[in-house]
Amino acid sequence: MTSEIPLQAVEELLLSVTRSAVPLLSETTAHILSAGGKRLRPRLVLLAYAAAGGTNIDEAVPLAAAVEIIHTATLVHDDINDHGTLRRGRETVNSRWGSTFALLTGDFMFTKTYEIMAPQPAELNRILARAATQLVEGETLQIQAARQGTLDRDTYYEIIARKTAALFVACTELGATAAGAPPEWVEALSTYAFNLGLAFQIVDDILDLIGDEQTLGKNAGMDLAQGRGLGAVRDDSNAPDALPATALQVTSDTAGGPFKESLLADHSLETAIALGRAKAQELVERALASLDILPPSPAVEELRHLARQVISRDR
Amino acid sequence: MTSEIPLQAVEELLLSVTRSAVPLLSETTAHILSAGGKRLRPRLVLLAYAAAGGTNIDEAVPLAAAVEIIHTATLVHDDINDHGTLRRGRETVNSRWGSTFALLTGDFMFTKTYEIMAPQPAELNRILARAATQLVEGETLQIQAARQGTLDRDTYYEIIARKTAALFVACTELGATAAGAPPEWVEALSTYAFNLGLAFQIVDDILDLIGDEQTLGKNAGMDLAQGRGLGAVRDDSNAPDALPATALQVTSDTAGGPFKESLLADHSLETAIALGRAKAQELVERALASLDILPPSPAVEELRHLARQVISRDR
Repeated sequence: MTSEIPLQAVEELLLSVTRSAVPLLSETTAHILSAGGKRLRPRLVLLAYAAAGGTNIDEAVPLAAAVEIIHTATLVHDDINDHGTLRRGRETVNSRWGSTFALLTGDFMFTKTYEIMAPQPAELNRILARAATQLVEGETLQIQAARQGTLDRDTYYEIIARKTAALFVACTELGATAAGAPPEWVEALSTYAFNLGLAFQIVDDILDLIGDEQTLGKNAGMDLAQGRGLGAVRDDSNAPDALPATALQVTSDTAGGPFKESLLADHSLETAIALGRAKAQELVERALASLDILPPSPAVEELRHLARQVISRDR
Repeated sequence: MTSEIPLQAVEELLLSVTRSAVPLLSETTAHILSAGGKRLRPRLVLLAYAAAGGTNIDEAVPLAAAVEIIHTATLVHDDINDHGTLRRGRETVNSRWGSTFALLTGDFMFTKTYEIMAPQPAELNRILARAATQLVEGETLQIQAARQGTLDRDTYYEIIARKTAALFVACTELGATAAGAPPEWVEALSTYAFNLGLAFQIVDDILDLIGDEQTLGKNAGMDLAQGRGLGAVRDDSNAPDALPATALQVTSDTAGGPFKESLLADHSLETAIALGRAKAQELVERALASLDILPPSPAVEELRHLARQVISRDR
């Protein structure tokens, strides 16, 4: 089932490219980059490249490293805004080095992403640059909605489309475009990635509600505490209010503890989770179906496998 | 004396390119970008393009906008770290919208810089990406040195080379390379820009010590309060200690006020300022001399004029 994708080369590039003349920046970036993570986005780049018929997969390695670094940069900055203390099973950069150096570490990772991509063709740079803007826009929308205490279903989807699905789409577009794939294959992989990205984020939001910090390797219960995510969606149309409006004002101090348990006993939140799971399942089906036009290959099989894993994962 | 450079087109691009689907980001970026500023970096790009014999200056406009946006992004992030309240005569983004949205505004400006540059040739992207990394490294070094309470002359120059001169060099390299200039012209303009960048930062540090907030349009006295800048350099070789070590621990609450005046009465700080002025003068001479190999033109004349202004400016 495992196709031959050079993930080890990506790991090496992640660390070598973020070495800095300023030792502190090498240290902070290595801290978060060597902690692992699922490497889902680099996998998407490499598998899309292979699935789209690319013949020299080494040329996709810098693209895979670039998306992982920019993704990690946004995590480092998000952890400043959320006061997160745990990420990928380790102390956050923010928690260990303080918010000033965490801010600069995120900036450094942005500029390193740009450095990796600079020698690449303009078409690939356009793809990643557009997605990078959407990441920032999605995060901004999310914080605005949380502060306003209003999160309807449409806004929830707009947020997760920008902050998660956009980069998934960029991953497969980068891989497939670098492979020289015909437009309809690029399009099929984009449809796969967009639906997978939405499903991934819905499951992520569910895990934040019900998951265990140890297994997740990051803080849980942050979403409810900050008035965001699936549990904060208020929608009259096909789901009861997921949360009483007052819950949206709760500070992050209460994250995780008894507050979470009381909410899980709440029927409406259970309903939101059940609806979320059903929606994620539906999105994954759509993702899988879009792959049908691609010629069968180990890479396509692995893309299918990966989509099913997104649903069944517990971290 | 004024050569025809399309600065108005740069202004328009700055605002049009940072319009976002998320209105808040359009608002925060317009707040800081429309406040003006000296536009020194865009001028350098456009003048270098013209001085290097470029014939279609409109093609340098996106490059000029890109450097101004990335420069402004670093100001927005610096203002978070410094708790700055005044920038370009306006309230800082941090002060008006809070640190979370200021962080995202800076990130948004980074990704917009990347979007503007994406269609450009790889050679130009390499130039800006390398400088962007140096900006972040310089800022990191500066904060580290301030926290450690040790700033020797070499470290001071390494900091200002990275955080200021590197982007000045990128400006002229971008302009001259886009113009298709021969390597020796690019080199001459780089030497000009590097020396000008160092001189500019030394004068900036002097203005922070003695300047008036109203005229500067930004907080003054921040450097001493935070243990950085020219006044914090400790060097036995050719200048007395500029500051007693204890002054480096002073918090930003004391910036500007009586603390500053007592330091200005201090002979050693006066000496540091005098030495700084002499050094800036010497660097500007070097910058001017490097232009001699370029064919005479209104653009070269304006580059000379600009270098002299750097010394005489009061903001």
